[in-house]
Amino acid sequence: MTEEMILTFDAEFHAVAWVDGKVAMLDQRLLPHKESVLEFDSCSAVADAIRLMVVRGAPAIGIAAAYGAVLAAREAYRTDPGDWLRLAVPLLAQLAAARPTAVNLAWALDRMRDRCAGLMGDPEPALLKEARAIHDEDQAANRRMGEYGADLIANGSSVLTHCNAGALATGGYGTALGVIRAAFGRAKLKQVYAAETRPWLQGARLTAWELLKDRIPVTLITDSSACYLMQQGRIQWVIVGADRITANGDVANKIGTLSHAVAARFHGVRFMVAAPVSTIDLATPDGAHIPIEERSPSEVTEFSGHAVAPPGCNALNPVFDVTPAALVDVLVTERGVLAQPDEQKIRDLLRPHF
Amino acid sequence: MTEEMILTFDAEFHAVAWVDGKVAMLDQRLLPHKESVLEFDSCSAVADAIRLMVVRGAPAIGIAAAYGAVLAAREAYRTDPGDWLRLAVPLLAQLAAARPTAVNLAWALDRMRDRCAGLMGDPEPALLKEARAIHDEDQAANRRMGEYGADLIANGSSVLTHCNAGALATGGYGTALGVIRAAFGRAKLKQVYAAETRPWLQGARLTAWELLKDRIPVTLITDSSACYLMQQGRIQWVIVGADRITANGDVANKIGTLSHAVAARFHGVRFMVAAPVSTIDLATPDGAHIPIEERSPSEVTEFSGHAVAPPGCNALNPVFDVTPAALVDVLVTERGVLAQPDEQKIRDLLRPHF
Repeated sequence: MTEEMILTFDAEFHAVAWVDGKVAMLDQRLLPHKESVLEFDSCSAVADAIRLMVVRGAPAIGIAAAYGAVLAAREAYRTDPGDWLRLAVPLLAQLAAARPTAVNLAWALDRMRDRCAGLMGDPEPALLKEARAIHDEDQAANRRMGEYGADLIANGSSVLTHCNAGALATGGYGTALGVIRAAFGRAKLKQVYAAETRPWLQGARLTAWELLKDRIPVTLITDSSACYLMQQGRIQWVIVGADRITANGDVANKIGTLSHAVAARFHGVRFMVAAPVSTIDLATPDGAHIPIEERSPSEVTEFSGHAVAPPGCNALNPVFDVTPAALVDVLVTERGVLAQPDEQKIRDLLRPHF
Repeated sequence: MTEEMILTFDAEFHAVAWVDGKVAMLDQRLLPHKESVLEFDSCSAVADAIRLMVVRGAPAIGIAAAYGAVLAAREAYRTDPGDWLRLAVPLLAQLAAARPTAVNLAWALDRMRDRCAGLMGDPEPALLKEARAIHDEDQAANRRMGEYGADLIANGSSVLTHCNAGALATGGYGTALGVIRAAFGRAKLKQVYAAETRPWLQGARLTAWELLKDRIPVTLITDSSACYLMQQGRIQWVIVGADRITANGDVANKIGTLSHAVAARFHGVRFMVAAPVSTIDLATPDGAHIPIEERSPSEVTEFSGHAVAPPGCNALNPVFDVTPAALVDVLVTERGVLAQPDEQKIRDLLRPHF
């Protein structure tokens, strides 16, 4: 990895970027040990990268897919300029199928598909502009959410976050980590606890890495230590992102989120979800209708390729869970904050822009 | 490791045994990959083995300490037969200090100390007999608890266990895994979920190993998947052991137990603690008075010696937590079962034997 690349990615921790006509991604599988940037110049390679978690995090996946759609259109246009749109359809479907739970992926692809309509000549410039707009809007949304969320946090608070809902999971700055960055910038935070987030250890590998880079004090804990720290009164807020929010306010997010939400309610700790409105899926009525991705049991039975469980041991590896709306104290979006979110409040939030 | 040793340990999974005048332990740090038996012939070596977690699990630690006390008396008697008891005192204190949270360690040493009083001549035979009695009684207690606990479980139930409260954690058969063994023997169990139990992975490394050896169907999950499975109605009972139960019924056990107890209550899942009466500490009024051991942050920031967190990352590693009595549906002991345990019920349970 070149010095230049390190500098580029240090500046704003871009999880994904459009660089010289290709989709560049910081390979999150190798963090925190190696900052390696991979470049992809085909739609199917981008789909593979999403599936293999080179990039992860609902908003970042959406942005990666938007850039992937640019590559899809380019490939289709090169093959048949007169019929590129028809040829692009299966390529976009490949991107859409890469991960099932986050809705931002489908949302970004819908938006790119809409932009395709009526394009004359080479579609790449217009689609690239749209993908860049998705990327820029996401980052701007995160900045706004950061301020809205930070407004709610009292001075001297300690907060818990789960998984990585940071710059690495978004177009930059982060959702949950955006709130934490803003609150830290306003000197409100005493301590940030990062739950390690088994099995993929996004908390240990990504969140700790991001926060240390920003010199925000972070203490890593095992996921189940969070409940103990809440019992001890050492956590005031749980702040997480979301992969999909249903019409009634149920929140799909990384496995372990539900456990923190239940523990928070039991111990009187407040629970905040920070997510852009692109994460809200009005077409899905509630959490029971969200497809929960199960990944390979080997993520649980092995660690960095070394077995930890005995040979022949079964494992179950659901990688998301659904936190019922009733456990969410605050939903922070770029359009404003909903206390005790429910279907009516969510529809009201979205209405002016529909 | 010799073939004979493998057979010895397969037969009844002894975590600790007295073999040819030494204390033998199956090195649990190496499981499930290697079945290696270490032998210790000094009290301080036994204390180190307890501290370093060659052996772990509250009852097994108590038994190891009892055998260690035999070595302490031997060492002291060899040095000065006329004043061995005085010389043994600091050695026993060394054993007592090896781990702070489990009370069985102190309980077993108190019993060994009581046995020392008035001994004439070489104390080893009498003390070895006492240590063996502690060991045998523990195993017999586990068999009784197994039946009592299994009585409560409906046919077709799926259960969750945390950490390892099995043969490896006790004198044999296990407390929580004793209940699971008995229930499986009576064809009541559909599925056993083993929570991996970060950071030391006792669930993945020890519980899965034990259950697979007994051909009991086990599915390994990450700790925070348990809450999701409870939400899905896929778990009917959480069954755990205990490291210390206070006078009011609060339960110190492996970190993560509290999280399962809170999730169980929230989702209407029943929560069972199986522990011998030697785990009950009437001298400690409630959980707030239990010393919670914190182990090295490197258990969280590293995995098998490989860093998972970025360099310089802080971590907090409390290895036990306290589940309030109010979250315990049933306490199963060898003297009987307490529903909704509280101080009065616990004192009544212990009274006839005091």
